Amino acid sequence: MVPHWVPRWPVWFFLASPRWRQTACTLRPSVEQRRWLGSRWLAGVASPLAYRGCSSASSHTSKVTLTKDRYPVQRLPFSVVSEEDLATFERIIPGRVITDPEELEAPNVDWLRTVRGCSKVLLRPRTTEEVSCILRHCHERNLAVNPQGGNTGMVGGSVPIFDEIILSTALMNQVISFYSVSGILVCQAGCILEELSRYVEERNFIMPLDLGAKGSCHIGGNVATNAGGLRFLRYGSLHGTVLGLEVVLADGTILNCLTSLRKDNTGYDLKQLFIGSEGTLGVITAVSILCPPKPKAVNVAFLGCPGFAEVLQTFSTCKGMLGEILSAFEFMDAECMWLVRHHLHLTRPVQESPFYVLIETSGSSAGHDAEKLGNFLEHVLDSGLVTDGTLATDERKIKVLWGLRERITEALSLDGYVYKYDISLPVEQLYDIVTDLRIRLGPRAKHVVGYGHLGDGNLHLNVTAEAFSTSLLDTLEPHVYEWTAKQRGSVSAEHGVGFKKRNVVGYSKLPAALQLMHQLKALLDPKGILNPYKTLPSQA
Amino acid sequence: MVPHWVPRWPVWFFLASPRWRQTACTLRPSVEQRRWLGSRWLAGVASPLAYRGCSSASSHTSKVTLTKDRYPVQRLPFSVVSEEDLATFERIIPGRVITDPEELEAPNVDWLRTVRGCSKVLLRPRTTEEVSCILRHCHERNLAVNPQGGNTGMVGGSVPIFDEIILSTALMNQVISFYSVSGILVCQAGCILEELSRYVEERNFIMPLDLGAKGSCHIGGNVATNAGGLRFLRYGSLHGTVLGLEVVLADGTILNCLTSLRKDNTGYDLKQLFIGSEGTLGVITAVSILCPPKPKAVNVAFLGCPGFAEVLQTFSTCKGMLGEILSAFEFMDAECMWLVRHHLHLTRPVQESPFYVLIETSGSSAGHDAEKLGNFLEHVLDSGLVTDGTLATDERKIKVLWGLRERITEALSLDGYVYKYDISLPVEQLYDIVTDLRIRLGPRAKHVVGYGHLGDGNLHLNVTAEAFSTSLLDTLEPHVYEWTAKQRGSVSAEHGVGFKKRNVVGYSKLPAALQLMHQLKALLDPKGILNPYKTLPSQA
Repeated sequence: MVPHWVPRWPVWFFLASPRWRQTACTLRPSVEQRRWLGSRWLAGVASPLAYRGCSSASSHTSKVTLTKDRYPVQRLPFSVVSEEDLATFERIIPGRVITDPEELEAPNVDWLRTVRGCSKVLLRPRTTEEVSCILRHCHERNLAVNPQGGNTGMVGGSVPIFDEIILSTALMNQVISFYSVSGILVCQAGCILEELSRYVEERNFIMPLDLGAKGSCHIGGNVATNAGGLRFLRYGSLHGTVLGLEVVLADGTILNCLTSLRKDNTGYDLKQLFIGSEGTLGVITAVSILCPPKPKAVNVAFLGCPGFAEVLQTFSTCKGMLGEILSAFEFMDAECMWLVRHHLHLTRPVQESPFYVLIETSGSSAGHDAEKLGNFLEHVLDSGLVTDGTLATDERKIKVLWGLRERITEALSLDGYVYKYDISLPVEQLYDIVTDLRIRLGPRAKHVVGYGHLGDGNLHLNVTAEAFSTSLLDTLEPHVYEWTAKQRGSVSAEHGVGFKKRNVVGYSKLPAALQLMHQLKALLDPKGILNPYKTLPSQA
Repeated sequence: MVPHWVPRWPVWFFLASPRWRQTACTLRPSVEQRRWLGSRWLAGVASPLAYRGCSSASSHTSKVTLTKDRYPVQRLPFSVVSEEDLATFERIIPGRVITDPEELEAPNVDWLRTVRGCSKVLLRPRTTEEVSCILRHCHERNLAVNPQGGNTGMVGGSVPIFDEIILSTALMNQVISFYSVSGILVCQAGCILEELSRYVEERNFIMPLDLGAKGSCHIGGNVATNAGGLRFLRYGSLHGTVLGLEVVLADGTILNCLTSLRKDNTGYDLKQLFIGSEGTLGVITAVSILCPPKPKAVNVAFLGCPGFAEVLQTFSTCKGMLGEILSAFEFMDAECMWLVRHHLHLTRPVQESPFYVLIETSGSSAGHDAEKLGNFLEHVLDSGLVTDGTLATDERKIKVLWGLRERITEALSLDGYVYKYDISLPVEQLYDIVTDLRIRLGPRAKHVVGYGHLGDGNLHLNVTAEAFSTSLLDTLEPHVYEWTAKQRGSVSAEHGVGFKKRNVVGYSKLPAALQLMHQLKALLDPKGILNPYKTLPSQA
């Protein structure tokens, strides 16, 4: 039996040594972090592949197996960092070249403790010019580089695989400017999302994205991984909200597209290339981003629906009746509710139903928003789309309702071995795979559950079993990926590709697209020094 | 004296012959088109360069001078279409190879009648496969191709410069699918925006973009030019709302990234490359786009402000108090109001003020929206940010108020020769250039006015004079571009580059960015056959 890693201890505890973190990072999780831990921290272990070779990660004292030993991956013929290289780096960033093995431990391991590199040097530039000098040298010397932000990624994209130089953005944490009329924030890539949130909230704006990992993740990393998160439904993708980027290319060229303009149609929108490219095409050093005004009121409704068709109709109705104030539409099935009640002893706030829906609104008038939600609730109850519902307007009750949705992952982890998938599908087909798998797996699975960001078409598909089983895994994979591909879905909705998913990208990208990805990589990084072994499928 | 082209006749009159238009296009402008004519149709003639060589375009009977004769541009060594080529095209798209000179007249001229090509063949494919076969042949034969949608572009990007083959998307006008829950529309590139609007509005959604040219423009062209338009402030850029594209590359390769997913983080977001690339990197053949729910209520407020600082503060306040229902924030200065009153005899609905602001809201509850606007108005009046204001909730009055803003261009054209610029600036600096130019030009200008989409940081800067004057032009250019560059603004906010602005792109893009643009062009279209002489600055 493969050991079942039940992470009951805050993962924050295992996080990077504070010695190399410039910004304060508490060793105990904050409320926000705990919320994240409760709901999201396991999501990155989406592919059972991560478990396959995971001999033991159940204790924070044990070392994570080296990626090169666990996975079938060959080191590419990059140079090895020499004393001369270190001396050069020391000249570029005096006192900020880290070679102490103890200090290098944390940045070599992903925060899920599933992949581990063996880099021997961490560089901590403060300026774009320093990044440029570093990359110019690495390019000349054919040294591989692993750009690293907050190291909170889910797919092993933020840590080295072999001995890549770790280029940390941690000291690039300055706000460059904030336009208080337009809400446009320009800052260095290493700014921590939560600190930026605080900064703009003091000025009556909010960041257009919010993640459980906000206490650690860097805005540059968010952009590099095209992070989704909790505000996606309302404020959309970073491809729309990021207005400008400054990027250092593989050869050290500084590509300054750091405009603070909502409209700019002067040629190709080059910044788009780097959003979601996971540091493989360039290192993002600064970001210009549009911040929406801070909402004055937040309300949450929790509803029971008699079927998935009614969930979809509720979503349509809700979009029509709540429209501009809708900020989240999450769903969970009856088995999810059973799990959170059984394992976490949470109270079901509405009558038992096959499906439950959580709707959040954010608006500029508490009264109006509550009235809209009230009218909507009355309508969906009268029409039978919803059989029961409750509305929360005070913060405490809102948190209780969100807890039901956010703690599903925690409940799942208490149910047994969990096979996890984070897929994107046309919303109409979102639940079919769950039903399909229940039939396919029969009694071999304890539970097959579906929940997630319905508003974004993002399904968290989870299967629990008494223990890990290769035969169950083989029944699941590649079936789930093939099924997703058949619906033209995405095998990675929001977590990206990184190292772990690079060989399943082909389920969502056609050969011509994969070829163009490789061509773009070859154009922008001909020596392949930037974040190697990531994002692009390994070429046979 | 260079003749002053005062286009009093509907420009639609000059538009393409209905014989080669599949979809109905009235020869008389619709109400929408008239609204556009009133406010936008001149905006494309942003650079006086377009006027410089414009000998006479004041009558629809006169021929537009050939671009190759008017501008200093050399034909690149592409092949010339042969009889064998025509036979090949005829095999690929039987009966849809147009060589009749009369039928070719309209698609050779831009709708502003400022540029004219001399193409001898127009191809009208219906399917992506046909586009692919055509481009494969053109690529092999080194034949240049000018992709053409509705030919409503403002910068001469949609018509040939020499004898490029015109590849029209007019017959690619089928809706492929519509997801009624998520509001995701998938359609061919040649669908006319207005028809798509009608299609989705019947299903309680709206298109995320709206343009005056919607009666003619194609969605593929909108995406290829990254069209802005009237809904930009609310629904953002096409980089955020376009979910997928199908594109045929220069060599005929079909790049199918036509997903209907809100979230997809499986590698590089390749579709972004083609949004705004004006047909120079590939031909968009199909589009997947996210449609927002149809708002139930629209309200408009028209306000007078004592200064530009107050305009900005009103904008900030408005974002805070109206937040999610704000759908337009337009401004105009006192000289604009003088012009529309003097030349068009429109009534000023509020007391005389140095600045005027038009605010539109769109929401899901008429009562709530009106109440929010009422509260906001009370607040800005009490605080002195606004000295007078009026609120319209019925359609007739809304149109009257919009008319004041939309008919400024018409009023300007009646004031004399107009020097026009469409620039994007940080909103805080938006009006400085107007003040600067008033001082700089002194009595040589009749009026220097500023108005535009303040919410998007998009300024329409206009200078009127008794007649065209080279010395006045030399005072304006490159000063306006240099000034814009100094503020890190954009010399083309929403109209793109096309042919007319390709040599001023350098004011908004740094050399490293221009170089990467050229590299991307070389990667995707190594022979340069796609829309040559456009978008990229001519290389010395």
